[in-house]
Amino acid sequence: MFDMRPVVYVIGLLVAVLGATMLVPMLVDLFFGRPDWSVFLQSAVISIVVGSAMAIATANGVGQGLTLQQTFLLTTLVWVALPAFGALPFMFGEIQARPVDAIFEAMSGLTTTGSTVLSGLDTMPEGLLVWRSMLQWFGGIGIIVVAMVFLPELRVGGMQIFRSEAFDTMGKVLPRAAEIAGRITWIYLALTLAAVLAYLVVGMSPFDAINHALTTMSTGGFSTHDTSFGFYQGAPEYVASVFMILASLPFVRYIQVVAGTAKPIFRDPQIRAYLGVILAVTLTMTFYRLVANGDHLEHGFREGVFNVTSIISGTGYASVDYQLWGTFPVVAFFFLGLIGGCAGSTACSVKIFRYQLLIAAIRARIQQIFAPHGVFTPRYDGRPISEAILSSVMAFFVMFVVSLGILAVLLSMTGLDMVTSLSGAATAIANIGPGLGDTIGPSGNFGSLNDTAKWLLTFAMLVGRLELLSVYVLFTLRFWRG
Amino acid sequence: MFDMRPVVYVIGLLVAVLGATMLVPMLVDLFFGRPDWSVFLQSAVISIVVGSAMAIATANGVGQGLTLQQTFLLTTLVWVALPAFGALPFMFGEIQARPVDAIFEAMSGLTTTGSTVLSGLDTMPEGLLVWRSMLQWFGGIGIIVVAMVFLPELRVGGMQIFRSEAFDTMGKVLPRAAEIAGRITWIYLALTLAAVLAYLVVGMSPFDAINHALTTMSTGGFSTHDTSFGFYQGAPEYVASVFMILASLPFVRYIQVVAGTAKPIFRDPQIRAYLGVILAVTLTMTFYRLVANGDHLEHGFREGVFNVTSIISGTGYASVDYQLWGTFPVVAFFFLGLIGGCAGSTACSVKIFRYQLLIAAIRARIQQIFAPHGVFTPRYDGRPISEAILSSVMAFFVMFVVSLGILAVLLSMTGLDMVTSLSGAATAIANIGPGLGDTIGPSGNFGSLNDTAKWLLTFAMLVGRLELLSVYVLFTLRFWRG
Ligand SMILES: [K+]
Ligand SMILES: [K+]
Repeated sequence: MFDMRPVVYVIGLLVAVLGATMLVPMLVDLFFGRPDWSVFLQSAVISIVVGSAMAIATANGVGQGLTLQQTFLLTTLVWVALPAFGALPFMFGEIQARPVDAIFEAMSGLTTTGSTVLSGLDTMPEGLLVWRSMLQWFGGIGIIVVAMVFLPELRVGGMQIFRSEAFDTMGKVLPRAAEIAGRITWIYLALTLAAVLAYLVVGMSPFDAINHALTTMSTGGFSTHDTSFGFYQGAPEYVASVFMILASLPFVRYIQVVAGTAKPIFRDPQIRAYLGVILAVTLTMTFYRLVANGDHLEHGFREGVFNVTSIISGTGYASVDYQLWGTFPVVAFFFLGLIGGCAGSTACSVKIFRYQLLIAAIRARIQQIFAPHGVFTPRYDGRPISEAILSSVMAFFVMFVVSLGILAVLLSMTGLDMVTSLSGAATAIANIGPGLGDTIGPSGNFGSLNDTAKWLLTFAMLVGRLELLSVYVLFTLRFWRG
Repeated sequence: MFDMRPVVYVIGLLVAVLGATMLVPMLVDLFFGRPDWSVFLQSAVISIVVGSAMAIATANGVGQGLTLQQTFLLTTLVWVALPAFGALPFMFGEIQARPVDAIFEAMSGLTTTGSTVLSGLDTMPEGLLVWRSMLQWFGGIGIIVVAMVFLPELRVGGMQIFRSEAFDTMGKVLPRAAEIAGRITWIYLALTLAAVLAYLVVGMSPFDAINHALTTMSTGGFSTHDTSFGFYQGAPEYVASVFMILASLPFVRYIQVVAGTAKPIFRDPQIRAYLGVILAVTLTMTFYRLVANGDHLEHGFREGVFNVTSIISGTGYASVDYQLWGTFPVVAFFFLGLIGGCAGSTACSVKIFRYQLLIAAIRARIQQIFAPHGVFTPRYDGRPISEAILSSVMAFFVMFVVSLGILAVLLSMTGLDMVTSLSGAATAIANIGPGLGDTIGPSGNFGSLNDTAKWLLTFAMLVGRLELLSVYVLFTLRFWRG
């Protein structure tokens, strides 16, 4: 067994910091005159005390840097510990959530999934609503850093393809992870502020504008209303669409834009393919709405672009129950969610670059068939893709599909019907939010599921958010042997 | 454009031979005093005349051997031409099937899928029932030969892993494809006769025993009763289970057994994994039936082993509507069908060896993570798997999943609901037979689907049966450029 102290140390610090941020919802509840403010004080004290104790007890074991094993363990345990402490306000507060529900909600927040077990959002203490939004916002920035710094280092899911790039394209000026993380945080903050302003302009209340900005930029999808974005039809849907897209583009491109080079953002094959898919599906869906549902153009286009963007980016806001549109949108949205946004953003799921790499590999295979002795190297963005990266991506895809299947079977064992099992598995692993069907569909809620199903989904959200392998390796003997 | 003559020549010959076999159902109808016998005579004459004309017109272009392009084209066009002519008796006969239905039924037969658009089987002319069974039986032997001889040569779907083996393990005694095909045909015939006898012993009528033997050994699944195997509950279910398993094991092992070496059949990792999965799922399902449905042991086990074997082997017989058992069996059977039998048998779907190769690749990936500079070669059956084979298998898996998704979306566009679209896509691409839901489920029928859906499914059966890439390459520019 290797040295756990550096891992516990970092987690302790993060838990303490999370505890400190609980003072924000406390102030919000005080401001709105909600008695629940004390819940956040209690939760903050517990988190700060426990977190600090963890850090102090292990501070003597902190050297320079982490081993590979420690990095893996840290990545997963951060997403276990923070939801555990982030769940406290749900348990202590007015809603008296049971642990399973509180942890589901906190995991759904920090993994930016956005599935909710809570209802009665419209009358809930403001502090708790802000806390949900903050969990997603923290989860969003956390995952960008993990995707840009940790996963490439861990060689998980082919993310190593972005390693050299993230460093190289900044001309070796920013060699260290901390500096990348710092720059990204500023950009994330700036975009969130821009979203707040934009939502204000189109008529949201300040409270809703802040909350929705936090959950838009994190592609999280928690709302402050039971009807989600159905509460804000019209211009806010366009604003949300723009910022959901911005949130699901690679953040390294924004660093470059800020540094004065806008060319890469227009040349990025990931961005081109992603926008192309959104455009194509939106137009198809609009056309379908006009023809099949007799909708009018602006309404059909608006609901199309909003819901398509919401699903493909993995945000999961719903402005309507698109299950009422017919069978095509239901099936289309199911598979759209399995595409996902760009790597290095807050978006989740398989992600567009993996499909591009897989298509490149299949093209190379076809060439190989016609020239068995030739050597055909699949390329991405003009550069050859190494075998190691390709096999990482393929392993990711296989694990994603097989995990989805196994999870769906397990969910069905708890008594969920086929559509709920399948879409529940997909929405959890792909961190989207809503499922399909009457129970967990766009107008539904995860609260009525059985506890086993909730634990399974909670685990799946974690596994999906950390790109599967980062969590799965912890279950191998080889990992613990060192 | 390359020389089409050798392709047309072979297809012409096969069409003529298919026409000649139509005299069998003609004799059956004469024997049972059905006026429909003339339908088969007409169809036979058309097929023999057109087929012979094709062969004669192109005989001057036949040299020695086929190019790669010609082989690809031949493989697909055989499975287009034979269903087209095999459909004739459905159109001319008493049931007066429309072309879309007749071609669906014939394609479902020759691809050993077993989905049917016909109802009223119990009172249908015996000749037509025999013709359906014969189509599946021809499709079964055809696909073994394609899988053992053509696909490895074409390097499709990783089947090349069996190329050296199929030749080597027979000690270079049988280097030529024709000899392999000959031996396999004898084994296929012998096993079919054994199945006829076994079905007779457990009380089937001679007519039903012959028909079900033909559709069991081909893992086809057409029955002579609207209730499928529900008509024959009890001992026949055990007999069917045994022969469905035999039909989905690699036939090369039987050649070896006949040659006196039984060791390989017990050592084959494909066979071990396949039987292991069947055992595990059957026991789980039996346990579920006892606990959740209060079934008794023998009945629960019998229905478990029969339906599990029927789905995983891709036969698609149904003895009951397992959708009534609860939600778990429905979802479990959906994914079970995506596993499939062994390569080199009449079974279809992804097939067990591909999962074994993919798991080996993922294990190697995990080793790589912990030793980035090490070289880890995934192994199958103790031997290293080449990069080319691995990438073929992965390409197959990705194409399978993506094709399933696209097909499901297209089906939903024609108005089918989510469960019908998804399970219809899966059952067609994996050549299983029944889908899920009220329409195309185990107790349902494909007859009521719209024509567009039927054409889509017909195409999907073809694509799935020929392991996707063999058909898809025909849609690439590179193929036609030569
Ligand atoms: K989400
Ligand atoms: K079948």
